[in-house]
Amino acid sequence: MTKQELHIIKIGGNVIDNSENLHHFLKDFTALDGYKILVHGGGKVATQLSETLGIDSKLVDGRRITDIQTLRVVTMVYGGLINKNIVAQLQRFGNNAIGLTGADGNFIRTKKRPVKTIDYGFVGDIDQRSIDPKSIGRLMEAGFTPVFCAITHDGQGQLLNTNADTIASALAVALSELYETTLIYCFEKKGVLQDINDEESLIRDIDPHRYEELKKQQIIHSGMLPKLDNAFTAINCGVKAVIIGKSDELGQLKHKQAFGTRLSNKR
Amino acid sequence: MTKQELHIIKIGGNVIDNSENLHHFLKDFTALDGYKILVHGGGKVATQLSETLGIDSKLVDGRRITDIQTLRVVTMVYGGLINKNIVAQLQRFGNNAIGLTGADGNFIRTKKRPVKTIDYGFVGDIDQRSIDPKSIGRLMEAGFTPVFCAITHDGQGQLLNTNADTIASALAVALSELYETTLIYCFEKKGVLQDINDEESLIRDIDPHRYEELKKQQIIHSGMLPKLDNAFTAINCGVKAVIIGKSDELGQLKHKQAFGTRLSNKR
Repeated sequence: MTKQELHIIKIGGNVIDNSENLHHFLKDFTALDGYKILVHGGGKVATQLSETLGIDSKLVDGRRITDIQTLRVVTMVYGGLINKNIVAQLQRFGNNAIGLTGADGNFIRTKKRPVKTIDYGFVGDIDQRSIDPKSIGRLMEAGFTPVFCAITHDGQGQLLNTNADTIASALAVALSELYETTLIYCFEKKGVLQDINDEESLIRDIDPHRYEELKKQQIIHSGMLPKLDNAFTAINCGVKAVIIGKSDELGQLKHKQAFGTRLSNKR
Repeated sequence: MTKQELHIIKIGGNVIDNSENLHHFLKDFTALDGYKILVHGGGKVATQLSETLGIDSKLVDGRRITDIQTLRVVTMVYGGLINKNIVAQLQRFGNNAIGLTGADGNFIRTKKRPVKTIDYGFVGDIDQRSIDPKSIGRLMEAGFTPVFCAITHDGQGQLLNTNADTIASALAVALSELYETTLIYCFEKKGVLQDINDEESLIRDIDPHRYEELKKQQIIHSGMLPKLDNAFTAINCGVKAVIIGKSDELGQLKHKQAFGTRLSNKR
């Protein structure tokens, strides 16, 4: 039996913080055919609310610490304010969205990150085997579009803050068992650029061979490296393709036109 | 075909604000057989957060006004903090809960209350016909337990604050079409009391005839009147029974023992 198509799309703060961008994106997301899942990160609102409440943003070695106060804030902002407003917008466009954390439906269980040199606080690392593709499949087949925020749980009653990029790729890997899955990361550039200062120098396709070349030529380096490494890991775990592109160009996908940089095993 | 049983249970601030009460209640809720839906109200947290943020609680003629700032707070607190923590607790007990507003799944659409003498702000009155029992049924039959907070939407992208008691009875009326539905209001007393100062004077059963008598004798008055009027309206619209009882005695229901005051058309 041919697997049905599924698109899993992750958006971050640059889309969420700009109501015009978000509106445009959610319209294009609604227009996409087939099964789809939205994963969204945080944005500025959580930081602003923390500041207003006098909660210090704790950084250790440049990495954010989620203390119990911060966990409360992100649960309110990601799980409540952002997630439910996105759902209400999608409903307006006729997309039968349902807003979720990993606790809902027990969809994503995580383990509180163990303390080694740094105590990250209430941060959860995904237990890949905890994601039951059949259970998420049942929700989609009942007619609902899942919208995940970056909150998960440990199965013992504790909510945990979890990276949205990682949630998107873990979902993509798990759901590849049942669906022909494309994972899409929306970010601020058009995709992977040959020249970072030239938006027209977009690289359309990257396969593992090309990826090695681009690394050798140091065209891909620093910030992009872990993103692309993770993308190829997902592809090796069954995801059909990973696309990195600009949110306001998502509509091109609907018209089967090239969109962003497509990473896959195929040439 | 015999309809399957469904219990819709509403809890308010007195359960939510006390973590021990809540824990106990959620355990008993999990133990209940058959289909079930939880509806929860607010509690003190929203008021506290509003105060911390310097948002005035506006009351007009003793009724709360939901301005745009207050709507943000309740979306965060009801839809995020309270709802997702309840879901995580239920998951811990093995109940496959999924946390919802009326926007999720387009389950409950409301109309912003028209301004007559008072402008209530972002408050939504339920459009009873908007509730599609089949859609909620599909979610339950896919294995999930819906947990609703007191937020709905207007279908045009606007979230609205909506009374949790009303949500519970509107759901009960709609779902009576498909399920043998019992609506349960948990509150701070054991049920309807013959003597308000004597918890042992619980009235076990009230049918419409008894209700008229109790009103004449002024045993039921003031605050209880609208509650019971609404209950009998729900019963006249197909709900099998409405029970008013104390949250920490819900466990008695599991053992088919009498719990609280049962309102129904049967003697």
